[in-house]
Amino acid sequence: MATVESLNAELAQQTELFNKLRVENAEPSVLEETRKRLAELKAAVKSAAGGKDGGKKKERLLLKTPKGTRDYGPGEMFCREHVERIVKECFVLFGGCQLDTPVFERKDILAGKYGEDAKLIFDLEDQGGEQLALRYDHTVPLARYLAMGGATNTQSKLWQVGKVYRRDNPVMSKGRMREFSQADFDISGLWDTMIPDAEIISLLCTILTRLEVGEFTVKLNHRKLLDGLFEVCGVPAEKIRPISSAVDKLDKLPWSEVKKEMTDEKGLDPTVADKIGEYVKHKGGRALLDQLLADPALTANANAKQGLDEIGILFSFLESYRILDKISFDLSLARGLDYYTGLIYEAVVEASAPPGFKSGDAPAPALPKKKSKKAAADEEEEIDESQVGVGSIAAGGRYDNLVGMFTSAAAGDGKKSQGLPCIGVSIGLDRIFAILWPKWVERGMRSKEVVAYVLSAGDGLLKERMELVQELREAGIATDFLAKNKPKFNAQFAAGERDEVPFAVILGGDELLAGLVTVKEQRWEFVEGKKVKVASTDKGTQVKRSELAQWLKDTPTFKTWSSGKLIRE
Amino acid sequence: MATVESLNAELAQQTELFNKLRVENAEPSVLEETRKRLAELKAAVKSAAGGKDGGKKKERLLLKTPKGTRDYGPGEMFCREHVERIVKECFVLFGGCQLDTPVFERKDILAGKYGEDAKLIFDLEDQGGEQLALRYDHTVPLARYLAMGGATNTQSKLWQVGKVYRRDNPVMSKGRMREFSQADFDISGLWDTMIPDAEIISLLCTILTRLEVGEFTVKLNHRKLLDGLFEVCGVPAEKIRPISSAVDKLDKLPWSEVKKEMTDEKGLDPTVADKIGEYVKHKGGRALLDQLLADPALTANANAKQGLDEIGILFSFLESYRILDKISFDLSLARGLDYYTGLIYEAVVEASAPPGFKSGDAPAPALPKKKSKKAAADEEEEIDESQVGVGSIAAGGRYDNLVGMFTSAAAGDGKKSQGLPCIGVSIGLDRIFAILWPKWVERGMRSKEVVAYVLSAGDGLLKERMELVQELREAGIATDFLAKNKPKFNAQFAAGERDEVPFAVILGGDELLAGLVTVKEQRWEFVEGKKVKVASTDKGTQVKRSELAQWLKDTPTFKTWSSGKLIRE
Repeated sequence: MATVESLNAELAQQTELFNKLRVENAEPSVLEETRKRLAELKAAVKSAAGGKDGGKKKERLLLKTPKGTRDYGPGEMFCREHVERIVKECFVLFGGCQLDTPVFERKDILAGKYGEDAKLIFDLEDQGGEQLALRYDHTVPLARYLAMGGATNTQSKLWQVGKVYRRDNPVMSKGRMREFSQADFDISGLWDTMIPDAEIISLLCTILTRLEVGEFTVKLNHRKLLDGLFEVCGVPAEKIRPISSAVDKLDKLPWSEVKKEMTDEKGLDPTVADKIGEYVKHKGGRALLDQLLADPALTANANAKQGLDEIGILFSFLESYRILDKISFDLSLARGLDYYTGLIYEAVVEASAPPGFKSGDAPAPALPKKKSKKAAADEEEEIDESQVGVGSIAAGGRYDNLVGMFTSAAAGDGKKSQGLPCIGVSIGLDRIFAILWPKWVERGMRSKEVVAYVLSAGDGLLKERMELVQELREAGIATDFLAKNKPKFNAQFAAGERDEVPFAVILGGDELLAGLVTVKEQRWEFVEGKKVKVASTDKGTQVKRSELAQWLKDTPTFKTWSSGKLIRE
Repeated sequence: MATVESLNAELAQQTELFNKLRVENAEPSVLEETRKRLAELKAAVKSAAGGKDGGKKKERLLLKTPKGTRDYGPGEMFCREHVERIVKECFVLFGGCQLDTPVFERKDILAGKYGEDAKLIFDLEDQGGEQLALRYDHTVPLARYLAMGGATNTQSKLWQVGKVYRRDNPVMSKGRMREFSQADFDISGLWDTMIPDAEIISLLCTILTRLEVGEFTVKLNHRKLLDGLFEVCGVPAEKIRPISSAVDKLDKLPWSEVKKEMTDEKGLDPTVADKIGEYVKHKGGRALLDQLLADPALTANANAKQGLDEIGILFSFLESYRILDKISFDLSLARGLDYYTGLIYEAVVEASAPPGFKSGDAPAPALPKKKSKKAAADEEEEIDESQVGVGSIAAGGRYDNLVGMFTSAAAGDGKKSQGLPCIGVSIGLDRIFAILWPKWVERGMRSKEVVAYVLSAGDGLLKERMELVQELREAGIATDFLAKNKPKFNAQFAAGERDEVPFAVILGGDELLAGLVTVKEQRWEFVEGKKVKVASTDKGTQVKRSELAQWLKDTPTFKTWSSGKLIRE
């Protein structure tokens, strides 16, 4: 049981969030979501407190989903299925095959893969068997599968869609949850330089475009370039990963705070930190690449040089794919995970159109000069801009050593395994849902897919209704009826209307004997934010009962409804 | 880490199973599955033992999925997606809306719902927050959702598809896992007697028919009838649930063992047990119903009478739905779960055609007479027959009090809540996969959905290949190419063949300049259990590059491939 105290803490947190969103004039749907959650928590606190204060009363059960999780009801699931369908179609389009792994893994499989975030792993209780933990992402289970020889060949394109788990602090309204859905696509195998990398970036752009998430930018960087850059700035070898992990926070924190983490927490020389600060402020496109290639300190470093060369090759491929305008080469992108070894990237959707990188013609920003304190403060705001909206909706990178780590550890002979180079992307389906759902609500989406509602105008006619319903369903027409013996005509009509079923099929006494039914078509329109039934003088059409299924299938309405269009036009 | 000891125990268990299946001449696919698992375990034991014995060596990592779980690779996922798609289509056909709940619940939500099987619940470790457990089924989370007021109205048809978790002893080859997928459909609300019940049974029959699982029978019984029957036989009130739970084992154990559990473990008077034994041997259809209605001891009991009356009403409805021939009224069916209150049912697929109940015309079996020990032994074999094949593939029942239990417990005022009557069915997707998969392998299913493979006959032509691949994908044609700068022609051809891609699109020097490409169509046939490429003298067709996408879309092959047919005809 959650205690009153823990609930009160959650309530306080939620209240704060709600007030903040109100002040910021957040979108109505986000605000509404937050308000609902707040009301639930208030009820839960009341219920828990009541159970205690009541003395004699039994302890009350708290009716809620676990922290950071939620139910998705019918309308929401329509939208989520729509998102998943588009993502899966794109995966197939790019030659992918599906993989499914268990929701939990042996704990030692997950160990040592997530750097500072390992504390967020959900452990299962050891109930006398294996030590298990819920999967944290799809990448590590995929690598385990590949290391077990799961793919029939070592060159494969595999995709997964499913839930992953992190004991993080949830921000439900922005789709940041403890249980959340990710769709992953990974390419494994020894291919030529940057070709799979370009395939993945092209896939990502295709998916985000088809989902109509709005303007987006794919920020990219290279781990080897970052490592080289840190070496050039004078970061000691053992501090490279921790410093990289500090840089990763630049999309959430101002530079001053990140610098503080580097120097105060991680013991970096402040002058080294400042040098890093100069570099990581850069973003742009090919011009930035040229500028960095002209930096002799960088190109003298083997790591940095390799990173820059690979980004150069990638740019030429992305031009062939015609997606260079979506790309921003961003030196502040570091990604938190330990296992990346090459290209890394992250897609962001911004509230306003992002500046992005316009196919080579945008000038690279000038190298920043030393700034006054005031100017530094302005910069902070610039960095913080990336926080507008839902933020990162997809991310990934190259991880050439992960599969090899598994095969080496399983061999246990201390030799380094040859491994299997991989690159992949994870798409945050909850974040995308958080962007699309308000638009769906605005446009007035359907509540159900039922096409025909069978009514009796006579005395119950339950048997006749059941028989007709069964026939229509057998013909592939989604059909329903009111589960009452002798329902009133108006009650049946209202039930069909509630689900916005377009065809009312009416069974009546004399007509029934003559083998006829009456069909009435009904339409709804979305007027000024409200669903309105279009007034109809239609008295209905008499149709032969034996021809009804075909008659319905031949209507334009049926064709629209069964084409998978979930939103009415 | 799993210890060598625990692995050895699992290995011994698996060896025994494998030998048993071999003796029984099990299907090759089942045998192969078991053999694979055995090999994995042997490797794991070797690896674990090696890690220990090696002394200086590091402990080896065990590369395996947790006990009772498995990965599903590309071919298998094709088959699973096919099953899920059909099930979802049927859910929509019957007017359902989708629901999704978290994979874990607060522990107190699951408490007290699963009777003797509660020990199988997977708990999460308390990492300083809520006490959580993985969901055991979809029914309890649905009831929690309904009690929270989740459905916008109290009369709803909701469906869920997802994984559930039980710490049971797995029998992987038969689809009995610790992590397994269930598809649930539930109707809630105060409807007229047995109408939703008939809808659910009709839905179940529709799904199993469309899935082509082979001959199946829906066994059904009624909890109130069972309770009444136990009362009539003289079972004390407090022993009714435990005795019911013993009866539930009749599909796995012979009567003598079940009787032993009743008398030795649960302290039931042996003469009472014998009386129960006489009843629970009956199965049949309407004639059995009539026979029981003619039993004055039964009809004098209010519970039994209500159960019999409701089954009578249900039979008349199932006749309207034209599915009475799939039904077997079976007094030995009890279902283990605590929360059922009315009709209960279970679908079984049998190795040979099931006897079933043929629409009222089958004679009810005579009431069994007292039997010699020899005769009793024969009976045991009869009972055991239901174990042939995969066994139960779907099950469910009416649970009118579960939602009310939640609302009462949340109110905490000791008053009984009015509640919300519900009835539902769970379909075991892994069991269905275990039945269908060998047939798919036999029929030679596709390995990928790629339609076009782009090759270069010239010097690499990477840029040109990328541009064409991008164009075809934009036109909605699943396309791939070999990710090499200058691949050999034959290597590209082989890669396309490996995935059985029907169209090879060849880019060559002079042709390319003239705006032309060559398309070669290839076909495979399944001959005597082997996939064979059909020899072709096709020199290829020259197509204008600008018209290629439309040209491909107009071919009959494209239309077949994109119609969702995953198995080649």
